Amino acid sequence: MSGQSDSTRRPGRRVGDSGTRETILATALEMFADRGFAATSVRAIAKQAEVDPALVRHFFGTKQELFTTAVVDRSKVAGRMAEAFRGPADSIGERLVRTYFTLWEDPETGPLLQTLFRSAVSDEELAPLFVPMMFARLQDRASDAESATILDRATLATPQILGVAVCRYIFRIPVIAEEPLDDLVARLAPQVQRILEG
Amino acid sequence: MSGQSDSTRRPGRRVGDSGTRETILATALEMFADRGFAATSVRAIAKQAEVDPALVRHFFGTKQELFTTAVVDRSKVAGRMAEAFRGPADSIGERLVRTYFTLWEDPETGPLLQTLFRSAVSDEELAPLFVPMMFARLQDRASDAESATILDRATLATPQILGVAVCRYIFRIPVIAEEPLDDLVARLAPQVQRILEG
Repeated sequence: MSGQSDSTRRPGRRVGDSGTRETILATALEMFADRGFAATSVRAIAKQAEVDPALVRHFFGTKQELFTTAVVDRSKVAGRMAEAFRGPADSIGERLVRTYFTLWEDPETGPLLQTLFRSAVSDEELAPLFVPMMFARLQDRASDAESATILDRATLATPQILGVAVCRYIFRIPVIAEEPLDDLVARLAPQVQRILEG
Repeated sequence: MSGQSDSTRRPGRRVGDSGTRETILATALEMFADRGFAATSVRAIAKQAEVDPALVRHFFGTKQELFTTAVVDRSKVAGRMAEAFRGPADSIGERLVRTYFTLWEDPETGPLLQTLFRSAVSDEELAPLFVPMMFARLQDRASDAESATILDRATLATPQILGVAVCRYIFRIPVIAEEPLDDLVARLAPQVQRILEG
């Protein structure tokens, strides 16, 4: 039984609210990555985080929304992708491609991306959130007009890099899975650069 | 209880064996497409086809193998992909891209491709069979040496077209999902043509 009221948001929020929020997100991310999206319920996350399920729903809405918030706020994925856009404009393609595939190969973020992709493919409500989740932090670093353009371009480059990631990490097609990362980056970077330049 | 011996293959096979094989494949494809791969058991297929589960395993091996055989033999997918490789060499990219996306949009094969892709993503044993399944009929139409080369090239073109299909039909990213088919073909065909030309 939760002692916290979740029906009103008072201006003077109690100390501990932000800690609770962080605990829920960290617990959720860990459980989703371990067990998969379908097998992890909001109730189980609440139990593990020692809070009331109603509080989780109050903070984060649906399970899909909790998942995307946990990925964006608590994993390195969205932050790293946004970082890739920093730096000289003429090498942004290379940075984006290298960052994306490094995240898939990183022992910390790789399993999460596998879960993220598998969950998005099998859950109709999560599916349309997959790409926005990857680029969620992009909007923090530019004016609204700039970030809208960057976001559109980044979205257009997605099929290019996602198709290779699926063949390499999910379907494990030998000729694509065995290509050294540097060769893969050298091959894809110019294509992505052209798309990002519009 | 099946009256058919499945432990020996006699030279004089009984009339009806090939009909039984066809019935099992048709039943399997229909059930997989309707219910999904995970929710369809060999036992349920056998029951629906009115044969012994042991006979299904004898003919087709694992559920994964039954699925790929059903898709290759009983759906239009592999046959249409192979057909796309027939005709003038300088327009093979366009034929391949148009055929692939038409299969995704066809009300008969579209749902099957959705099931096929979702199943391959979530089943580790099925995953490596996804691309070979698409191109399974290619080998029927060329010498071994030729078909090996064509198959390698076709495999290398897969990330390009698969990435767009995932973004368009699974993640339904608006800017990619709403592109008219003719524009999409015009955009991707030259890229795929270059890959197929090696």
